[in-house]
Amino acid sequence: MNEINRTEISTIGEFGLIEHLTSDITPVNQETKLGVGDDAAILQFNDDEEVLVSTDMLMEGIHFDLTYVPLKHLGYKSAIVNFSDIYAMNGTPKQITVSIALGKRFCIEDMEDFYAGLKLACERHNVDIVGGDTTSSLTGLAISITVIGTAPKGKSVKRSGAKTTDLICVSGDLGAAYMGLQLLEREKIATMDQEGVQPDFAGKEYLLERQLKPEARRDIIERLREANVTPTAMMDISDGLSSELLHICKQSKVGCRIYEDKIPVDYQTAIMAEELNLNVITCALNGGEDYELLFTVPIADHEKVASMKDVRLVGHIVKEELGAALITRDGVEMELKAQGWNPMKSK
Amino acid sequence: MNEINRTEISTIGEFGLIEHLTSDITPVNQETKLGVGDDAAILQFNDDEEVLVSTDMLMEGIHFDLTYVPLKHLGYKSAIVNFSDIYAMNGTPKQITVSIALGKRFCIEDMEDFYAGLKLACERHNVDIVGGDTTSSLTGLAISITVIGTAPKGKSVKRSGAKTTDLICVSGDLGAAYMGLQLLEREKIATMDQEGVQPDFAGKEYLLERQLKPEARRDIIERLREANVTPTAMMDISDGLSSELLHICKQSKVGCRIYEDKIPVDYQTAIMAEELNLNVITCALNGGEDYELLFTVPIADHEKVASMKDVRLVGHIVKEELGAALITRDGVEMELKAQGWNPMKSK
Repeated sequence: MNEINRTEISTIGEFGLIEHLTSDITPVNQETKLGVGDDAAILQFNDDEEVLVSTDMLMEGIHFDLTYVPLKHLGYKSAIVNFSDIYAMNGTPKQITVSIALGKRFCIEDMEDFYAGLKLACERHNVDIVGGDTTSSLTGLAISITVIGTAPKGKSVKRSGAKTTDLICVSGDLGAAYMGLQLLEREKIATMDQEGVQPDFAGKEYLLERQLKPEARRDIIERLREANVTPTAMMDISDGLSSELLHICKQSKVGCRIYEDKIPVDYQTAIMAEELNLNVITCALNGGEDYELLFTVPIADHEKVASMKDVRLVGHIVKEELGAALITRDGVEMELKAQGWNPMKSK
Repeated sequence: MNEINRTEISTIGEFGLIEHLTSDITPVNQETKLGVGDDAAILQFNDDEEVLVSTDMLMEGIHFDLTYVPLKHLGYKSAIVNFSDIYAMNGTPKQITVSIALGKRFCIEDMEDFYAGLKLACERHNVDIVGGDTTSSLTGLAISITVIGTAPKGKSVKRSGAKTTDLICVSGDLGAAYMGLQLLEREKIATMDQEGVQPDFAGKEYLLERQLKPEARRDIIERLREANVTPTAMMDISDGLSSELLHICKQSKVGCRIYEDKIPVDYQTAIMAEELNLNVITCALNGGEDYELLFTVPIADHEKVASMKDVRLVGHIVKEELGAALITRDGVEMELKAQGWNPMKSK
C-alpha cells in the first residue's frame, strides 16, 4: 500500500472517489450506451430494448447489523435495493447474480434463511437468480448483488434530463427507514445486557418495516406508464432526498426549489422524531434507505402526476444559477446540502 | 442467526452450498436461457446474440494477501479472472461493474493503483467499466466484479455438452500459479522480521507472474474460431484440473481418462515442486488459479487441435459408468478426485 503519498478517502467521499477513478473512462464497445454515474448502466444489444445493469455491495457492520436484522429480511432487502436501481431507470429488473462471502460463524441454515428472503423478493418482482459466487470471509458477511433489467428503447430515464420548469415528484413518504434504524439502535443498546427482554415496538411497526423490509416502487413505474408519463430524470432515494436531488441538479445542470410543507412524512416518523428531539424535515431530507422514487416531469404532465396515487409534487426545477434550495414553511430560502447517509464519510 | 439447527457449511462445501440453495430455482423470464451452475449465465435479448453474465468475489486474506500482492496487480487479476469466465463460455467480455469495500487503512492513491490495474486489463481485452459501488468495510478489502459478455447465438459453450469419445484439451501449462503462491508464502515467512530484505526470485519469474498477473486466454478462443472448432464443453481452470474435469463429467453425464504424461507443466513448476518436495502432477491437477481453458472437442477435430499452438490433448471422454480416472506413466488407473483449492472447505 501507498505509504508515501497518502490522501484520505474521506477528503473526497464515496461519490468523489468514484468520479476521480472513472472520469477518464471512455467506452470502446458500441453496446455501451451509458457507463458509470447513474443508477444503472445502459447497454444495447438490439434495436428494441435497452439492457440496464446495476450493482450494490452490502457489508456487515456498515450496511446492516445482524444483532437486529434477521437474515431472511437481509436477503429480501439486498434484492430489493437492487431492483430499486432498475425501477429508478424506468426499467424492469429481470435477473440477478448474488455473491456472498461468509465467516465461519454462519451455517447452512443461515444461508437458507438469507436465500428464502432473496427468493421471496425475486418472486414478487419476477426476477431470476442466474448466478453467483459463495466464498469465505475472515470476518463479517459481505453481499454483492448485480441486477440486470430492461427498458424499451429510448425509455430509460437518466439523472441528467431534468429541464427548467419541470416538476419534482416523490413517491411514498420519507424519513421512516432512518427512524426505524434509530429505533432499532436505541432498543439494541437498551436491551443489550438483559437477555430475554423483548423491546416494545407497538405503534412503530411502520418504521421497522421501512427499515427492515423496504419495497421497490414497481407500482409507481407501472402507474407512470399507464398514464403515459415519461419522467425527464429519475433516481431512487437511498441516501436522502437532498443528496439525490443535488445529483439530479448537477447532472442535469439545473437548480431546484422544494417546499418544506410539501415533503411527505408519515405520522409515525413525525412522532418518533419528536421523541428523539430531531427535526422531522431534516430526517426526511437526509435519512437514507427509503427507496422511494424521485423524478421530474414536464409541467404539461402536472394534472397526471398531481392525481397519481402515492405521488407528491414537492417542488420544481429552476435555472442552474439559482442553485438548489428548500423553501421553509415561513418562506425562507435555505440552500440544500447533502448530509445524506454516506458510509464513506467519517462521521 | 440460527442457534438451534446448525449444519456447518464445510459438510457440503462451496459447490454443494450453491447447489443446495439454488436447485429449486426455475427461471420465469424468457430471456433467461441458462441460470446458476456454469461459468456464466446465458441471457438472450435478440435473435443473433447471447449475453453472458458472470460474477466473482475476492476477499482479503482468502483470495489475496496484500503483504505481497501490489494493488495494481490485484486490480489486473480481479478483472482477468472475470474475463476468463466469459472466454470459458466461448464468449467475448464487453463490460464490467466493480464493487469495492475498503477499510480506513486504504487511501485514494491505493485505489488509483487498483484502478490502474483494472483499466490496463480492460484496455487489453476491450472491456468497458460501466458501473460500480464503493463503500466502507470494517476490516479488509472486498472486491466484487460482474462481467457481461456476448457470443453469437448458439455458440456459447456450457459445461454440459461433452460426449463419449470427445477429446480433452488444456491450454498453456498447469500448476505454476500454485507454485508462485507457495513461493510468495515461503518468502513472506522468511523475510517477515527482516525489514529491507528483498527476496530473491531469480529463475522463478514465471511462477510469480502466473500467480500475480495471470492472463485470460482470449487467444485460444480466437484460435478455435479461426480453425472453426466449437468445443462441446468448456470451462476455465480456477480450482485445479481435477476439480474442473469432474464438473464437466458430472454436468455432461460422462466419464474421462486423462494421461499423466500429457499434462502440461512448465520446467520452473517442476523445479519448484522438487524444491518443495511435492509431486508435480498433484500440483498440476489440484493447484488453482491457472485460468487456462479446459475443453472437449469432437474426435473429428483431432488434427485441428493437435496442431494448435499452446493447446495440449490430455485425454478423452468415456461413458459415465467408467468414471473419471488418471492413467499414470506406468499405466495404473487412479480415480480422479477434486482436491482443488476451495476456500469454503476447512483446511
